[in-house]
Amino acid sequence: MRTIDWVDGAVELIDQTVLPDQLTVLRITTVADLIAAIQSLAVRGAPALGVAGAFGVAVAAREFAGDPDGLARAVRAVEVARPTAVNLARGVRRAAARLDDGFEAVLAEACAVRDEEIAASEAMAMRGADLLTELCGERPRVLTHCNTGGLATVVGGTALAVVFELHRRGALAGVIASETRPLLQGARLTGWELARAGIDFRVAVDSAGPFLLARGEADAVILGADRICANGDVVNKVGSYSHALGAQRAGVPFLVVAPESTVDPDTPDGAAVEIEDRGAAEVTPYSAAVNPAFDITPHDLVTAIITDRRIVRLDRGEKL
Amino acid sequence: MRTIDWVDGAVELIDQTVLPDQLTVLRITTVADLIAAIQSLAVRGAPALGVAGAFGVAVAAREFAGDPDGLARAVRAVEVARPTAVNLARGVRRAAARLDDGFEAVLAEACAVRDEEIAASEAMAMRGADLLTELCGERPRVLTHCNTGGLATVVGGTALAVVFELHRRGALAGVIASETRPLLQGARLTGWELARAGIDFRVAVDSAGPFLLARGEADAVILGADRICANGDVVNKVGSYSHALGAQRAGVPFLVVAPESTVDPDTPDGAAVEIEDRGAAEVTPYSAAVNPAFDITPHDLVTAIITDRRIVRLDRGEKL
Repeated sequence: MRTIDWVDGAVELIDQTVLPDQLTVLRITTVADLIAAIQSLAVRGAPALGVAGAFGVAVAAREFAGDPDGLARAVRAVEVARPTAVNLARGVRRAAARLDDGFEAVLAEACAVRDEEIAASEAMAMRGADLLTELCGERPRVLTHCNTGGLATVVGGTALAVVFELHRRGALAGVIASETRPLLQGARLTGWELARAGIDFRVAVDSAGPFLLARGEADAVILGADRICANGDVVNKVGSYSHALGAQRAGVPFLVVAPESTVDPDTPDGAAVEIEDRGAAEVTPYSAAVNPAFDITPHDLVTAIITDRRIVRLDRGEKL
Repeated sequence: MRTIDWVDGAVELIDQTVLPDQLTVLRITTVADLIAAIQSLAVRGAPALGVAGAFGVAVAAREFAGDPDGLARAVRAVEVARPTAVNLARGVRRAAARLDDGFEAVLAEACAVRDEEIAASEAMAMRGADLLTELCGERPRVLTHCNTGGLATVVGGTALAVVFELHRRGALAGVIASETRPLLQGARLTGWELARAGIDFRVAVDSAGPFLLARGEADAVILGADRICANGDVVNKVGSYSHALGAQRAGVPFLVVAPESTVDPDTPDGAAVEIEDRGAAEVTPYSAAVNPAFDITPHDLVTAIITDRRIVRLDRGEKL
């Protein structure tokens, strides 16, 4: 089951805002609806956003055929619908580079983006499972944050694909999924995916993670990324940084799994990334809030970055 | 307004489970009801639990007059209603030591526990405000976790009493209150208390705290304790430890404010403390959970402990 795809002339995507209570597929044929789906997090996860962005250009090319100014504005609106993950803008730009060749060329490029993310997921799963057993022994227990499964990509996932692969190998001893406030992508989405895969897991509040690591309840932290900077700083769902601090103190590996499409050589470091603040309403009905959707894990806290093409051991001084 | 008191022959306490939506006072006349209030967190916060425990012995002395075995069982049941905070058991034992002298003696002792906590709160507020301005300058911005205000004590508070005092002095530049999952004591209770005091604040999800510190948005972390061990390890609401890691990395003080009644010389270190797990239902309706209600902040991450009688600068090698 694909999180997002092009089906019979429309973008179809699983509405992640209503999982796990409802499995609903949205059928999207306008740029406005696609942007709304991106901004509401109906579709989320850096690789899935890249695919959404590429398909968004195809939607725009059809919707604004014969209106070059409208088309340019629509493409730009998709590109900036969310600022932090590099994949969205990158997917848009890849598909938009084919606009002069017409709708079919744009759609073909968008489908290529989708297919590459599917292939990347498989490659990451293998590499990550190999590295985890190398670092943590035959049957690791892992702690993961946010959702990095098929819902965040197209199928499979990034960090969660590694967990699925360990499970297939009979080499998984336990999973703690942090709930991931404020929108509970861990409790809702990762929980849904793990349950469907028949994998036992426990949910923890986000702030328990570092303590659970100190208590020896997981052998590694494994999670995804929304942007990996040139110096190895990792921008990911808020809470990743506190888990990295906890992993460092506990002496367990902190592993980041993301496709090459998330590595951004044009962003020198985390300080250069715009961190989206999603406003108070997501956090509390009662008062003002500060609600950064992402945080920055400095590269010195990252043991390794696992992509579809390579493993970069930051802990050994390797560079991207 | 007192969180908990003895009024006309009963324990009266604010039901903290329904704040801020409703301000409801529970009137309690049986041991069973008191234990239910403690276990549901209708009353919570280490100093308030100490007072609840002491009053609980008075309730038991009346309810089980003439039934020494029943009385002993009831007193024991109150003592162990929650395991982590030292104050509950200590308040029970203080009042229970007067059982041979009759109900009035027990009640007088319980009222003394209450009055001492009220006095302690004032002393901590002064000492803590002085230390904060000494460490962080004239107008500090603070990050606080869970609820440590009047609701956690009787009036005033521990860490939040320091915040109130800074505000009274015109020396408070900002407050971030972490929401404190799973039961949102920060968003609900600290938010309610700060709003009543006319103090502006922002709520953050718990896992954002370390990142907000890294981004320079607070000058200190200030919070309470449920038990302070002989070696300076601090047992407090889950999430305290991750904030301590974040404070260390950001180079800002991590200050613990608690009355002497929370210091437990009989507990050598954090590893000796039973950490209550409150079960899955508080965290998620969907699946299994691991739900430690507290965590342990090792003493090397604590800048200073502020009690009603002293400031212990752990960062300077001072000991309890």
